[in-house]
Amino acid sequence: MMKIAVIPGDGIGPEVIGQAVRTLHEVAPTVETSYFDLGARNYRATGRLLDPETLDEIRHHDAILLGAIGDPTVPAGTLERGILLEMRFALDHHINLRPTKTMPGAPRVLAGDANLDLLVVREGTEGPYTGNGGALRVGTPHEVATEVSVNTRFGVDRLLREAFERATVRRHRLTIVHKPNVLAFAGSLWTRAADELAVLYPDVEVDHMLVDAAMLHLVTNPARFDVIATDNLFGDLITDLTSALGGGVGLAASANIDGSRRNPGMFEPVHGSAPDIAGRGVADPTAAILSVALMLHHLGLSREANTIDQAVQDHIASRGQESCPTEQIGEQIRSRVASGPLTPPH
Amino acid sequence: MMKIAVIPGDGIGPEVIGQAVRTLHEVAPTVETSYFDLGARNYRATGRLLDPETLDEIRHHDAILLGAIGDPTVPAGTLERGILLEMRFALDHHINLRPTKTMPGAPRVLAGDANLDLLVVREGTEGPYTGNGGALRVGTPHEVATEVSVNTRFGVDRLLREAFERATVRRHRLTIVHKPNVLAFAGSLWTRAADELAVLYPDVEVDHMLVDAAMLHLVTNPARFDVIATDNLFGDLITDLTSALGGGVGLAASANIDGSRRNPGMFEPVHGSAPDIAGRGVADPTAAILSVALMLHHLGLSREANTIDQAVQDHIASRGQESCPTEQIGEQIRSRVASGPLTPPH
Ligand SMILES: CC(C)[C@H](C(=O)O)[C@@H](O)C(=O)O
Ligand SMILES: CC(C)[C@H](C(=O)O)[C@@H](O)C(=O)O
Repeated sequence: MMKIAVIPGDGIGPEVIGQAVRTLHEVAPTVETSYFDLGARNYRATGRLLDPETLDEIRHHDAILLGAIGDPTVPAGTLERGILLEMRFALDHHINLRPTKTMPGAPRVLAGDANLDLLVVREGTEGPYTGNGGALRVGTPHEVATEVSVNTRFGVDRLLREAFERATVRRHRLTIVHKPNVLAFAGSLWTRAADELAVLYPDVEVDHMLVDAAMLHLVTNPARFDVIATDNLFGDLITDLTSALGGGVGLAASANIDGSRRNPGMFEPVHGSAPDIAGRGVADPTAAILSVALMLHHLGLSREANTIDQAVQDHIASRGQESCPTEQIGEQIRSRVASGPLTPPH
Repeated sequence: MMKIAVIPGDGIGPEVIGQAVRTLHEVAPTVETSYFDLGARNYRATGRLLDPETLDEIRHHDAILLGAIGDPTVPAGTLERGILLEMRFALDHHINLRPTKTMPGAPRVLAGDANLDLLVVREGTEGPYTGNGGALRVGTPHEVATEVSVNTRFGVDRLLREAFERATVRRHRLTIVHKPNVLAFAGSLWTRAADELAVLYPDVEVDHMLVDAAMLHLVTNPARFDVIATDNLFGDLITDLTSALGGGVGLAASANIDGSRRNPGMFEPVHGSAPDIAGRGVADPTAAILSVALMLHHLGLSREANTIDQAVQDHIASRGQESCPTEQIGEQIRSRVASGPLTPPH
């Protein structure tokens, strides 16, 4: 019996997760779900973020489905660092997969007919996300604040290996995105690690691209990208951009994975808790539903995952541009799941 | 007599600077120019990047006009760090101004009719650009590489003050872009510094935006931005994006300024040396020509600067989408400069 830990979280999290879990049960009725009340509400009530006992319980699940973490009434970053990043680091989610594929019918941001079909493989446990750094003379005119990006050959290697592997089952193109002309130490490590691994993957065409140039190429010629491997912070920026270009964050799903598979993966929409629209039933649950599909793929339930992917694709194709209530989008996708695919899965 | 230090640099640098200097002389015939041969050629011939004597000579000019620095035959970053960044740091260019304004006739990247009219005020002497960091056990499986982002209240304050001032003579909107939910030390410094300064500028509407969210808003609703203040690295990424969205890097100019005006400012196109098209006479010199206009504005020669701005605007409006040789674009802009504005300057 598969056991999923569900963390609805903050803002629109509970709304989109509600639809996601119902979709999950539609394709996989026997999967068990247990709910964890983490986020602003629990923090205000108990002062707790993610305590070791809760983390331990979560660990004993096959996967985690998360809505969103973050609330404007709590000091900036407290929940994000104390819950979301804490979980990514504690469960060694060093691989963060963020695919973007333009779906027919989805909103188009770019002029022309450029389609995106790419996968960002973002490092999840290093770079400027480690919490290293500090501050001196805080609050005085002489304040100094540092942030340290920590990068290891071990960490970069295991991330790049995943990216090469993904490229071999896609279009065999891998773009390494970093900033070695300025970030000399980390950039050199990334460049050398990629060049050495490339020898083992002669069928993958490897390209090094400066992160600033990547911004440019993503909007002018996104079709040139297949797999992008990049660091934690660059990946954060790039994937908000690719999500927007590929139809909006309303459609962008992501997977946080421990490559050794010792810890459960965490699956979540790329979007945040969107407090400005929370509680109004207007958030798009599609990204959360597609995160369920990513989760099922990861758990080996490919048939069930494909059913959801296909239902979403058919739904988007017929959706139109006006926005729908959360509930209605969820229902429409579920009814397509129930009635089976309209077009044969490929 | 105004004296300009001209550094053509690498790749397409000399080609675009050639047109830029001729345009400068068209509007300001008495301005003196002295050339400095810095870049790959000089480095290969002499082993030198930017020596103290040359820097001292450059210092005794009213401004610097630079083409591009960077060459694939020299180890990544050597020239960029040894010449370009060296100059920005030595001349305390803490303010990096990168305006984007969609010009009628310019290529459009975004669907719909969104126009950009924004100014990025990027910090230029702090953040992850300081060269702080290091590496341990290089070349072994246990390699560790760090990059340290250094931020000071002094540095952030002087940058933000410039951004507030610029906002007061524009549309009175300032967006502070950082990542305080993850980069807690630096982010908190930026947030507090902005909030305290905001009290002194009650007529400026201040907005804090996460850098990842900025990626999204820039492509979905760029019109919401007026002035953006951000750190060195985030500014690097954002301005490649805004340049692309505003008509391409072929049109993007930038100014590196020491706010105290003790040192000459450096004016350069946002684009790089583009070795792939160098020497073929096909690079667009417009960004270099607009950098001359930025320089003249900075030197108080507003009439001359406006003449160039207007000539470029008229040229773009009539240019058409097919690409022209470097020389031809330069000539066409100069002939408009010579014949005076077609439409009255505003
Ligand atoms: C909420 C935040 C900590 C997180 C990140 O920066 O990784 C988010 O932006 C994301 O991309 O998942
Ligand atoms: C060439 C490089 C060092 C430089 C930077 O990163 O600042 C460039 O990208 C820029 O934006 O001017």
